[in-house]
Amino acid sequence: MSKFEEKTIKTKEIFNGKIIKVSVDDVRLPNGETSIRELVKHQGAVAVIAVTEDKRFIMVEQYRKPLEKALVEVPAGKLEPNEAPEVTAIRELEEETGFTTEHLEYVTSFYTTPGFCDELIYLYYTDKLIPLTEEKALDEDEFLECQSYTMAELDDLIKRERIHDLKTMYAVQYLKLRGFD
Amino acid sequence: MSKFEEKTIKTKEIFNGKIIKVSVDDVRLPNGETSIRELVKHQGAVAVIAVTEDKRFIMVEQYRKPLEKALVEVPAGKLEPNEAPEVTAIRELEEETGFTTEHLEYVTSFYTTPGFCDELIYLYYTDKLIPLTEEKALDEDEFLECQSYTMAELDDLIKRERIHDLKTMYAVQYLKLRGFD
Repeated sequence: MSKFEEKTIKTKEIFNGKIIKVSVDDVRLPNGETSIRELVKHQGAVAVIAVTEDKRFIMVEQYRKPLEKALVEVPAGKLEPNEAPEVTAIRELEEETGFTTEHLEYVTSFYTTPGFCDELIYLYYTDKLIPLTEEKALDEDEFLECQSYTMAELDDLIKRERIHDLKTMYAVQYLKLRGFD
Repeated sequence: MSKFEEKTIKTKEIFNGKIIKVSVDDVRLPNGETSIRELVKHQGAVAVIAVTEDKRFIMVEQYRKPLEKALVEVPAGKLEPNEAPEVTAIRELEEETGFTTEHLEYVTSFYTTPGFCDELIYLYYTDKLIPLTEEKALDEDEFLECQSYTMAELDDLIKRERIHDLKTMYAVQYLKLRGFD
């Protein structure tokens, strides 16, 4: 038994969407009392740190509807059911940046919001980029702009909150600890 | 107008919970087509990096129902409506760790999952901890264990995926870049 385990008494399904599923669980607390937990299920995702030969960092800018503004982020995308994360990572890299790679390095994984959602992101790194000869299609409802930046530019984007999501801010710290400046 | 803006045509409310609200929006895409966006609203949260005089890092372990396991994380908690983040940060520090502080340093803020949720976390730092003489009550459905670790121990917890959430992994990188080892 896991520490402080909360056993499910009943699950009520609220929403079964394309991106998320929502349920409300009645749970038995460690002290025997009951409570409810609001839970979001997500397929998981990948993100790719892509570094060019001249040590520039490739980012994509896209509109984020929940925030009603565009953010600059590391290339990323959702896992398809039963898809290996490395496969998703290569596909998203190709679609979003126009590069591919034969050298994808696994960095780490992390839960983005463990309090209410099970989304797990797998983070990869590559500095061996190969330009694609043909552009790959994005999802039909996906619009983004791809650009590369120096570390000083990334620092400035963070300061101005144009980069403002945790996975990208983690990626920038990771690059600094890896020796990029 | 923000780049690639997606204008809301219609909002359908799905769920209005204690922690999250869920809606599905019909949106007009930049190319004139329509699509849907599944959106989760969250009040936002704070997290606190708390460092003891002998350079140990205070973490809390708690069960995370979405993952069906316990994780070790930086002390954190949800904002109350209209509450200043620094007030939440002090309250969560006091409730979860038994320490308070008069020197809370703002580090940064970040969106945890901008693709589908507007949760924003404010991150703070303190290395001026004052032990409370009386224990503060946790929320009635909250069970956790507080412990302090060395940096080597944090690295090991990450390796073993006992620390596995993005805000805590960001905090550990932040501490390293700040010179802790």
